[in-house]
Amino acid sequence: MDAGAALRRRPGRPRDEDIDGQIVAATLEIIDAGEDVTVARVVARSGVSRAALYRRWPSLTTLIAAALDVGREVPPEYPKDADLREIVLTGLGLGVEGVAPSAPGYSEERFRQRIRLVMSDRALQKAYWESHVSRRRVPLQNALRAGVARGELRADLDVEACFDAVAGVAYYQLVVRGDRISDPTVVARLRAAIEVIWRGMVA
Amino acid sequence: MDAGAALRRRPGRPRDEDIDGQIVAATLEIIDAGEDVTVARVVARSGVSRAALYRRWPSLTTLIAAALDVGREVPPEYPKDADLREIVLTGLGLGVEGVAPSAPGYSEERFRQRIRLVMSDRALQKAYWESHVSRRRVPLQNALRAGVARGELRADLDVEACFDAVAGVAYYQLVVRGDRISDPTVVARLRAAIEVIWRGMVA
Repeated sequence: MDAGAALRRRPGRPRDEDIDGQIVAATLEIIDAGEDVTVARVVARSGVSRAALYRRWPSLTTLIAAALDVGREVPPEYPKDADLREIVLTGLGLGVEGVAPSAPGYSEERFRQRIRLVMSDRALQKAYWESHVSRRRVPLQNALRAGVARGELRADLDVEACFDAVAGVAYYQLVVRGDRISDPTVVARLRAAIEVIWRGMVA
Repeated sequence: MDAGAALRRRPGRPRDEDIDGQIVAATLEIIDAGEDVTVARVVARSGVSRAALYRRWPSLTTLIAAALDVGREVPPEYPKDADLREIVLTGLGLGVEGVAPSAPGYSEERFRQRIRLVMSDRALQKAYWESHVSRRRVPLQNALRAGVARGELRADLDVEACFDAVAGVAYYQLVVRGDRISDPTVVARLRAAIEVIWRGMVA
């Protein structure tokens, strides 16, 4: 569990990061156990004082959002000569903001738990979207915008909408069909859908 | 609450349908209250005997799936001369298997509750997919297949994958972004995404 490493929100002494890591790791254990996250439970599991918890995380919502994001990262910017079609096919629907277990520690079970939590708490959903999901989208959206500027993609392209379309296909498999992304039939269906979207994107 | 009307699973005396309606309505009340659906609770709320409940619904999973579907319908087949682009734009992402409150009694809150339930129970998810969602997809998929046969859509089109792409965009708004389909910004984004997908579908 390297929750601390995934959570460098601010510079500071290593000691502070250890405490943050303990808090986030404890929160994640509570989530994974299917229990409601409460201040009392986080205090009991992490061994961190209530005062220290409140000082670092004034709101449980942002703490839960951070815990749900452990094991996921904002990908680096793509090189200028990257193959856009390849990025869209592999980097998105099946990777990055798709739900393939590319990141160690980010299991499908964790994904399902995350969806349950955000569907029962819109404030958490919005916090998770703003501070985590939307940030992971940036490098790929930048690459698509560069493709528009180069004339490779349509000039009138709504890059955010395109991202939604490709990521949406992946979510549909898991949230609606109840399929697993590791299933070859599912991969083939995702590929077919993303090829359609890609064709609609090119100039 | 016309749960009974939405549930004509078999021919029979009106009396039987009344009982089915009572059972499904009680189940829906339990779901809407955020409580776990148990046989004891359904019996208590519906006033139907435990024996009658088991006779009609040998599994709670299929009962919950049926309750989640109240207010939703399998749309009729489209006319042969229907405008496919229009169907895809309005009939899908924003209607039918999208999540606009087109059907009375099917609120966004109910939608969120449904997603929570299926994400915590894969058997329920699969049952709901097979007996409800996948059936609602058939008329539009038939219309798309007719479009392929007419040469209007690409010959190699994977119709199921296209449906996933369009419906996926709508789900993404609600499940990931936490937006409401009634928001004009969201409608514009959906339209933009579906236009991209449509362009990728035409021959």
